[in-house]
Order: sequence, then C-alpha cells, then structure tokens
Amino acid sequence: MMKSKIRFTEDLQFVGVADSGHAVIMDAPLSAGGQNTGSKPSELLLMAFGGCSGMDVISILRKKKQDVTNFEMNVSGETPEKYPKSFTDIHIEYVVTGKNISEEAVKHAVELSLEKYCLVGATIGKAAKITHSYKVIQES
Amino acid sequence: MMKSKIRFTEDLQFVGVADSGHAVIMDAPLSAGGQNTGSKPSELLLMAFGGCSGMDVISILRKKKQDVTNFEMNVSGETPEKYPKSFTDIHIEYVVTGKNISEEAVKHAVELSLEKYCLVGATIGKAAKITHSYKVIQES
Repeated sequence: MMKSKIRFTEDLQFVGVADSGHAVIMDAPLSAGGQNTGSKPSELLLMAFGGCSGMDVISILRKKKQDVTNFEMNVSGETPEKYPKSFTDIHIEYVVTGKNISEEAVKHAVELSLEKYCLVGATIGKAAKITHSYKVIQES
Repeated sequence: MMKSKIRFTEDLQFVGVADSGHAVIMDAPLSAGGQNTGSKPSELLLMAFGGCSGMDVISILRKKKQDVTNFEMNVSGETPEKYPKSFTDIHIEYVVTGKNISEEAVKHAVELSLEKYCLVGATIGKAAKITHSYKVIQES
C-alpha cells in the first residue's frame, strides 16, 4: 500500500508528503482564489504520467543500448466544460534525441510502457483516451 | 487544454514543468535504480488527489463559515501484484480541526468534492474504487 499525507497551509496552498519523504507544494492560480505558489493538482497528474512513462522508456532504451542524449515529453489533457469533469483525452509526445537511435526501439519502449508498465498511465487510461506520438532527433 | 513538459535529467530523475510555471522533481527509489531525489510518479498521483479534493473542501467549509484551524488528509492506494497495474482501491481520510465544526458541513463538503468538483478524483475514480472517511477534532 502506498500512502501520502496532504496538509493545508493557508489560502489554497497544500503540502503533500509522500512515503518517500519528498514533498510537493500545490496551489490554485490567482484566478481561482489561490496564490499560485505551486502546481495545480491536475497539472501534477499530467506530470506524474509523463514521469512514470518516461522512467519506463529511458530504462528500456538503456537496455536496448540506445545512446540517448536528450529526452523529453509533452503531455496535454482535455477536460469537459461541465462538472463532474475528468480528463477525457490525454496526449503524450515523446521526443528522443541521440546518436543512431532506432525508431523501432523507441516505438517498442513506448508501447511497453503504455500497455504494461506505467501505473499512472494504466490508472488514468481507464478514464481518458490516451494517445501518443514520438519524435526521434538524430544527432550527428 | 492543459499542458506540461517533462524532461529527463539523469539516472531516473525527471523534472516536470506545468503551464503554471511550477516544477516538480520525480525520481525512482534506490531499490528501483533511481537516486530517490524526488517523489515517485505514483505518489504524486495520490498527492494530487489529496490537494485537489482538499482545495474543494476548504473552500466549501469557508463558505459555510467553519472556523478550521488545521486540515489534513491521508491518502492511501492499493495496486495489484501483476502488470499492468493500476490503482484498484484508494482511500482518503479527511481530518478537520477547528472550533464548533459542523460534522454535517464536513460531510457535505467532502461529498460535493468527490461527487462533483474534484477533477483528479473524477479521473482516477474511473479506475479505482475511492472510499473516504472523515474525522472532526473540536478545539476548545
């Protein structure tokens, strides 16, 4: 079982502390009555998805002896206008830069992450339609 | 549409940056090949849920003129042993401390958040069974 504690501080600021001992500050934007001192919880969800899948992908690419020099993901999410809102569509773009990167290796790593390993993706994928794309940038 | 960028740094460390401009460090524990420099993505998901629902609850309790002096949540999540894993059960406990706090107000605020307002809860609630409880501590 995974546990975390989330504590209210002031205005709409909360501090989450996870089992691992790491803390994260969450807040609402000024427009929603917060002070914008930290990530919005819904943004954290998208970042958690990227981090989760990214760890899988970089691990698999290492096992496949790929020489990755840069790796980033862009995650975007759509929500409906009306309550109750949940993410309906989430897109994740993987951008892998390196030397002689095999597109097939990237494709396989991404598929393994999204279809098997990524816990956050498996969870939110039951609510939202997750689509993905990838871009390989070859360094000379 | 909500967007965020997640960038690989080294080992299994990733830095997420959200639309709001706030960053979060994610990492894997030492046991999983990471350096434990930041929250695990799955922990972030649980913290995001607590922050999301907490913002709703504190906002509603303020509208109900409740004198809250302390507020925290404990969120725990269960995952299956086998891949693909997704959270199957998530429990959130709300602990509200204050003077003459109405239990009815807390109950109503929690229900409004979980049934209507909380985007993260609505999203993960399609994968996991979310249960909740609350505790009111009256200060003299």
